Amino acid sequence: MKVYVVGLGPGGFNEITPRAMAAMEESDVIAGYSVYIDLIKDKFSHKTLLTTPMKREVDRCHMALEEAVKGKTVSMVCSGDAGVYGMAGLIYEVSQQYDPVEIEVISGITAACSGAAILGAPLIHDFAVISLSDLLTPLELIKKRLEAAAMADFVICLYNPSSKKRFDYLMKACDIIVRYRSANTPCGIVRNIGREGEEYKVMTLKELRNTEVDMFTTVFIGNSKTKVISGKMVTPRGYKDV
Amino acid sequence: MKVYVVGLGPGGFNEITPRAMAAMEESDVIAGYSVYIDLIKDKFSHKTLLTTPMKREVDRCHMALEEAVKGKTVSMVCSGDAGVYGMAGLIYEVSQQYDPVEIEVISGITAACSGAAILGAPLIHDFAVISLSDLLTPLELIKKRLEAAAMADFVICLYNPSSKKRFDYLMKACDIIVRYRSANTPCGIVRNIGREGEEYKVMTLKELRNTEVDMFTTVFIGNSKTKVISGKMVTPRGYKDV
Ligand SMILES: C[S@@+](CC[C@H](N)C(=O)[O-])C[C@H]1O[C@@H](n2cnc3c(N)ncnc32)[C@H](O)[C@@H]1O
Ligand SMILES: C[S@@+](CC[C@H](N)C(=O)[O-])C[C@H]1O[C@@H](n2cnc3c(N)ncnc32)[C@H](O)[C@@H]1O
Repeated sequence: MKVYVVGLGPGGFNEITPRAMAAMEESDVIAGYSVYIDLIKDKFSHKTLLTTPMKREVDRCHMALEEAVKGKTVSMVCSGDAGVYGMAGLIYEVSQQYDPVEIEVISGITAACSGAAILGAPLIHDFAVISLSDLLTPLELIKKRLEAAAMADFVICLYNPSSKKRFDYLMKACDIIVRYRSANTPCGIVRNIGREGEEYKVMTLKELRNTEVDMFTTVFIGNSKTKVISGKMVTPRGYKDV
Repeated sequence: MKVYVVGLGPGGFNEITPRAMAAMEESDVIAGYSVYIDLIKDKFSHKTLLTTPMKREVDRCHMALEEAVKGKTVSMVCSGDAGVYGMAGLIYEVSQQYDPVEIEVISGITAACSGAAILGAPLIHDFAVISLSDLLTPLELIKKRLEAAAMADFVICLYNPSSKKRFDYLMKACDIIVRYRSANTPCGIVRNIGREGEEYKVMTLKELRNTEVDMFTTVFIGNSKTKVISGKMVTPRGYKDV
């Protein structure tokens, strides 16, 4: 009768909110991409756990909604926040093919926020979040957004910065941004946030251009005011009396 | 010896992560703007609680850092995420005036994410977060960012959308955005997220232009694809088989 769309945060249990835990506890069925189900399966082994592989997002929504219209309470889990490149939108879209089902989205900490915390305080001020994946977005639009964000001096946070096919997209993105911003702009990458092998690196935009990243990485590009303080990436908010 | 900069999420305890709770439990001192200290003071009444009024952010950082260099463990608390228009940046900046102190930022759920969850799924795709406060940012730069974000079809999330002095800023922002986007674009406002009196409204950009909001509100403006599904604001990610 109800679908919770639950954001699990970056990785560990200690960044899952009590509200998200309660939703899963209340559910008969927990559905999600196998990697996230693996994360929580020990704690919820008495539930029906439904998994689909990556890239089967639409199937996953049908699976969840079919259980819900049968009368079950279902949690559809995602990493980070379900509303940021997550399943929250798709479940609303697919739900139109079913009898009315209550949908409740429960926020989790998105990679922009958890990654920023590890790097220091890169976001602090106005920022733009852009996915470099052209699987569902035309490359031209991605470039246009990079350009607009660079031009207006937004801090930029990149999701899905790389994949085998798109190994040079981060380089291309940096080439667009550097037209508007110093090659010495502080940047940062964070990998495996909240998971085993968590690592981060602060570097310049020039260095970022020649850095290889994978799909478990989130990338941050500072604005014209961003600086490095004690090895961390910090964007000032503009207080004059500091 | 250590300062945690802790994001408390939108309001209630059920959206504070276990990691944030643990940091406060471990601390000798909890510092923050009085409204947030009020929120948690019953649970942490055995701690030293230090408050400053709004707009005394720099003082608050000095207060926290002075305790830390004295050897205390301090939690500096903020609403939402400490790294989004929060205190995480300022504490790094002010800390340069002190002997080295360990700083750890602990993410919370920011209003963009918690607000989006209430409205449905407005963010889902590339988005820009912009504060309409010109207290620390020149108005011209805010306008430039609004224009760039509108032009490149970002979903736009507005923090600090209003104050007594800036009562017509949201109207001005809508006037910029409507030059690039249909007046019927789905928009949403969410007030008092996670707190008493939580409310939301989905409306068109035209209607938003004539809506009065206060500083406890976060505003969402859809992109060219955003639609209303069952009264919720949903931005499709672009799956073709839905
Ligand atoms: C399909 S998106 C999902 C985002 C997720 N819903 C969120 O809010 O964080 C996948 C991208 O998010 C980022 N990401 C998600 N979790 C991450 C983690 N634990 N560490 C680093 N990056 C992560 C990476 O950029 C990755 O390519
Ligand atoms: C100075 S900013 C602090 C943002 C906070 N650090 C965060 O990450 O959510 C204040 C603005 O955040 C938004 N905001 C923060 N908490 C909110 C809540 N509980 N309900 C609605 N808006 C909120 C409003 O736009 C408000 O004007």
